[in-house]
Amino acid sequence: MWSSLLGFFGVLLLRECSGADSDIELDARAQTTHRLDTLNLLLYTLLLILTVLTVWLFKHRRVSFLHETGLAVIYGLIVGAIIRYAGSSDPVLRMSVVSNDAKYNSSLPPDALSLHFPFKYHSKNKTYEYMFRGEIRDVRDNEIDFKATFDPEIFFNIILPPIIFHAGYSLKRKYFFRNLGAILTFAIIGTTVSSFVVGALMYGCVQLMPSHMANSITFLDTLYFGALISSTDPLTVLAIFSDLRVDVNLYALVFGESVLNDAVALVLSGSIQNYAEKYQSGTGTFETVAFFKAVWNFFAIFMLSLLIGAVMGMITALMTKFTRIRDFPLLESALFVLMSYSTFLIAEATELTGVVTVLFCGICQAHYTYNNLSDESRNRTKQMFELLNFLAENFIFSYIGVSMFTFPKHHFDVLFIVAGFTCAAIGRAVNIYPLSWLMNFWRSPKIPTNFQHMLFFAGLRGAMSFALAIRNTVSEARQAMLTTTSLIVIITVIIQGGSALNLLYWFKIPVGVDEEPDTRRNDGTVDWPNSPYDKAILARWWSSFDTNYMKPLLTHSRPTLLETLPVCCNGIARLLTTTEQMTQENANGNLGDSDSDICIVDNDTYQRDNSSSVTPSIQAISGHQV
Amino acid sequence: MWSSLLGFFGVLLLRECSGADSDIELDARAQTTHRLDTLNLLLYTLLLILTVLTVWLFKHRRVSFLHETGLAVIYGLIVGAIIRYAGSSDPVLRMSVVSNDAKYNSSLPPDALSLHFPFKYHSKNKTYEYMFRGEIRDVRDNEIDFKATFDPEIFFNIILPPIIFHAGYSLKRKYFFRNLGAILTFAIIGTTVSSFVVGALMYGCVQLMPSHMANSITFLDTLYFGALISSTDPLTVLAIFSDLRVDVNLYALVFGESVLNDAVALVLSGSIQNYAEKYQSGTGTFETVAFFKAVWNFFAIFMLSLLIGAVMGMITALMTKFTRIRDFPLLESALFVLMSYSTFLIAEATELTGVVTVLFCGICQAHYTYNNLSDESRNRTKQMFELLNFLAENFIFSYIGVSMFTFPKHHFDVLFIVAGFTCAAIGRAVNIYPLSWLMNFWRSPKIPTNFQHMLFFAGLRGAMSFALAIRNTVSEARQAMLTTTSLIVIITVIIQGGSALNLLYWFKIPVGVDEEPDTRRNDGTVDWPNSPYDKAILARWWSSFDTNYMKPLLTHSRPTLLETLPVCCNGIARLLTTTEQMTQENANGNLGDSDSDICIVDNDTYQRDNSSSVTPSIQAISGHQV
Repeated sequence: MWSSLLGFFGVLLLRECSGADSDIELDARAQTTHRLDTLNLLLYTLLLILTVLTVWLFKHRRVSFLHETGLAVIYGLIVGAIIRYAGSSDPVLRMSVVSNDAKYNSSLPPDALSLHFPFKYHSKNKTYEYMFRGEIRDVRDNEIDFKATFDPEIFFNIILPPIIFHAGYSLKRKYFFRNLGAILTFAIIGTTVSSFVVGALMYGCVQLMPSHMANSITFLDTLYFGALISSTDPLTVLAIFSDLRVDVNLYALVFGESVLNDAVALVLSGSIQNYAEKYQSGTGTFETVAFFKAVWNFFAIFMLSLLIGAVMGMITALMTKFTRIRDFPLLESALFVLMSYSTFLIAEATELTGVVTVLFCGICQAHYTYNNLSDESRNRTKQMFELLNFLAENFIFSYIGVSMFTFPKHHFDVLFIVAGFTCAAIGRAVNIYPLSWLMNFWRSPKIPTNFQHMLFFAGLRGAMSFALAIRNTVSEARQAMLTTTSLIVIITVIIQGGSALNLLYWFKIPVGVDEEPDTRRNDGTVDWPNSPYDKAILARWWSSFDTNYMKPLLTHSRPTLLETLPVCCNGIARLLTTTEQMTQENANGNLGDSDSDICIVDNDTYQRDNSSSVTPSIQAISGHQV
Repeated sequence: MWSSLLGFFGVLLLRECSGADSDIELDARAQTTHRLDTLNLLLYTLLLILTVLTVWLFKHRRVSFLHETGLAVIYGLIVGAIIRYAGSSDPVLRMSVVSNDAKYNSSLPPDALSLHFPFKYHSKNKTYEYMFRGEIRDVRDNEIDFKATFDPEIFFNIILPPIIFHAGYSLKRKYFFRNLGAILTFAIIGTTVSSFVVGALMYGCVQLMPSHMANSITFLDTLYFGALISSTDPLTVLAIFSDLRVDVNLYALVFGESVLNDAVALVLSGSIQNYAEKYQSGTGTFETVAFFKAVWNFFAIFMLSLLIGAVMGMITALMTKFTRIRDFPLLESALFVLMSYSTFLIAEATELTGVVTVLFCGICQAHYTYNNLSDESRNRTKQMFELLNFLAENFIFSYIGVSMFTFPKHHFDVLFIVAGFTCAAIGRAVNIYPLSWLMNFWRSPKIPTNFQHMLFFAGLRGAMSFALAIRNTVSEARQAMLTTTSLIVIITVIIQGGSALNLLYWFKIPVGVDEEPDTRRNDGTVDWPNSPYDKAILARWWSSFDTNYMKPLLTHSRPTLLETLPVCCNGIARLLTTTEQMTQENANGNLGDSDSDICIVDNDTYQRDNSSSVTPSIQAISGHQV
């Protein structure tokens, strides 16, 4: 039977590495391709950053013979020549022809096939290329349906990054830092506990189900489900909180926890996946070493992602502090966007979690860089990310709706769905109530019971849960998880989201609460409270360190490093203190309160045009939309 | 030799349509895939537009039980269900398995291959999927190099649209419309003449070259080269014009011509490609019918693209005029972006030219919709597209530089390059000088000789030329064209761009010219000249039609349709006139000068917050960056 085909085609095999023989290699190849794409993008992003900085330098020094596009071309030529002549010895991915009479003796499938059409039907021979796309695990399901579906990886590479960056960038930092202890407790301990509880309960439920389901689902599968369903997305609730001016601390708890638990759930599910793939490959037994490696993996990836995000944010802050790029707002905004995007790319290229990185980058950009930006750039970046966030968010929710019907790999299993809903609710309860009870022993102010109920009900599931569920749908178990997750997202967003208003009244949550009157007024005046807020220890330590060292280093705020560093460091301190910092009016000094939500607008030195009244309107937007 | 492979693999063939047997079908398939992707995106874009409008309606009517994400999910579910149950009878692209003992008897290669690994090396059989990628025309060149290169189509689908939209959106319309006749003459007649002259000259040059080159290049190839090299991109020159405040009419001529000739060159090259593919397939003889079909094709695509772009812009204007969506600037900006993007997608889905469509959409959005937007949205959209334009532009120029060394399909041919440079210069001269001479017979004010020289030297080549050249590199001829085009872009951008300042002084072009004092001042006051500018007939006719019918219909400007339409149409006119239009102060009436560059800021009705001073600062930016 093959001869009929063979009389027709010759198949040339294009392949990459030789002598490899496992699934891991295949995963590694997919990762290599992704890393290569990322490195390509990173290359161009860095080139653009270089161009922006040089253009600024040229404009600053009034050299005008070269436009930015000319510079971009020149840098491009230089980098292209380097890649061509220096880098060619070690290409990351290169495919070459294995001639069609060579025996193909690797268990790894080739990267590409080329199909040779002989003379018979055409005026000349033709060769067509086919690229490797992945394994078809379910051969029954061989029909490929393109209708209204996208590659799940676009969620992690295109849709989630602006959403998460915006969450970090628009964080109300004052209240976030005040409630830092509680937020971290809920987000890290709570999410982990919730993941394991849901995982264990689901595994128990599955064992009671008909045997075909029970046999196909491992504990790691349900644990993965536990992790993905533990991330929350209380968009609706926050919108209502904002409209009704709900208590700011409750707002901070709900928002802060939801932002961070996305990051935790993402890294956690990655570690579970890693553990499952690398150490258990089918045996199903518990391996202590592998388990601790997975735990280490979780912390390492989380902390490194946090670090890279924060460091890149700080580098941007230093760039904007020590250059006068704010004289050219367009260049400044471009630099800001490029630095933030390169943070994502660097994380992806180093196999960290890009989405987590941009979260912490966003927080740092808002906390430090934002203060150095020109009014125009503040306005532009805030508004742009707000719009991108709006579009990305609504796209993903539209997609959740459409894909419920069009995505070919749904698997409806009523028992599994019921179990999923129940366990998700229990997991949320296990996250909120015991931890609140524990924290209330030392926390002041305490988290009252009605706040706890509201925190429980604010546990809507959203974009992150869905993106994690649709990422992997190879087995029936995973397909059932996707279906359950989609339904949980849809139901919680519509029902819990829709009843949030009633719940607020039901739980007698105080509404119409004004923020403490320390935000910039619309008339441009600033009014600061002098009463110290009873902060948590962590918040207090951070606040003091931030005010004394970080802000003076990274922004133009007072006190300067000259005042806070010991005398022996005076030389360095002088180097790191700008004239703006020295000459600004002392009245602005107390703006340096580290956990303040508003930006330091240093009217004397920054105000460049008559558009300074832009600032209150941005504040109004960000306050309304967070 | 095949048996060794066959013992190892089973190749399943997945394919689409049957009984087709030509290259055209293959192109058609690629087009189908593109159209399908586009339709998918369009579907979600329309869903988001629907969501935005509904959310606005809900907010307007103070219905707050559903957040936008909830709505997005619900609409998604509805549309998903419709696609699933109604649309499945006629799937656009569906691939199914042809079992491996079926004879594959089509001359068309399959859409996908699946490669079957038997039990031998793995614990179970595995099947891998390979997607069709395209023909490998040059089998010698079978090494695939991923380094620092992207699919050329990303330029047309991702990089060019924001650049071209921004060009339209930031057009200084007053001077554009005043010089409309000259701009259209240069852009349409000039570009066409230039394309044919360059094509003919190049063909002549190639005939004098060594025979292998002469044989491989057809007249249509050189004509394609003529079209792509006739589009100009005078970024550097315009930046300098703007800095030095060069005569506004010269600025308008250079900018207007460059914007429109991109569109003309793109459509022209498409028609040439079409003519080459469909009617000549290798015979090389001139076919009168096919030629006129190509000419018709050119006009039809150009006019339809223009129409769709303009209509979508007008629909956006109507949407923003007759709803009070401007009360929610974020929704309004989102609607604006989504409508503009859907214009691109609609054009691509209907096989028109998306890039041309967004140009005219941008012009309409600026001319009509912009007047209806809230201050915040004006600010946000202007600044966002400015930033996107900056990033896209510099990305493409970086890429031109890098790809000079890394793109594997360059072909350096010194004679061809020299011929290319010479012909490109001659083509530019043929565009500018004879047409200026002709137009000066009736034009007032005339285009002086030094302006003509400057127009000639402002003919830098840029993004569009490069994108068109890299789109198709199958033959050696096309590769030589890519190399030549890249070099022309690089040299003109660096040398011509770099000497623009000197040329200005050399040609004694007046600099430091203020625009006529009818733009909005920074202090917010408006000062209008009463002296009529001697407009060209075309401009005068358009101006009057626009002021009397288009602006009253699409914006809140005076006079209203009640005043300009005949009495019999009073009913319709009343329906199309808003209260804002009726109640605004008459003092604003004379803002309705159709070719005015500035926006009508109707302070009484629109001003929603205290950020109205944003407007002058936007104007300053746009004036600086155009």
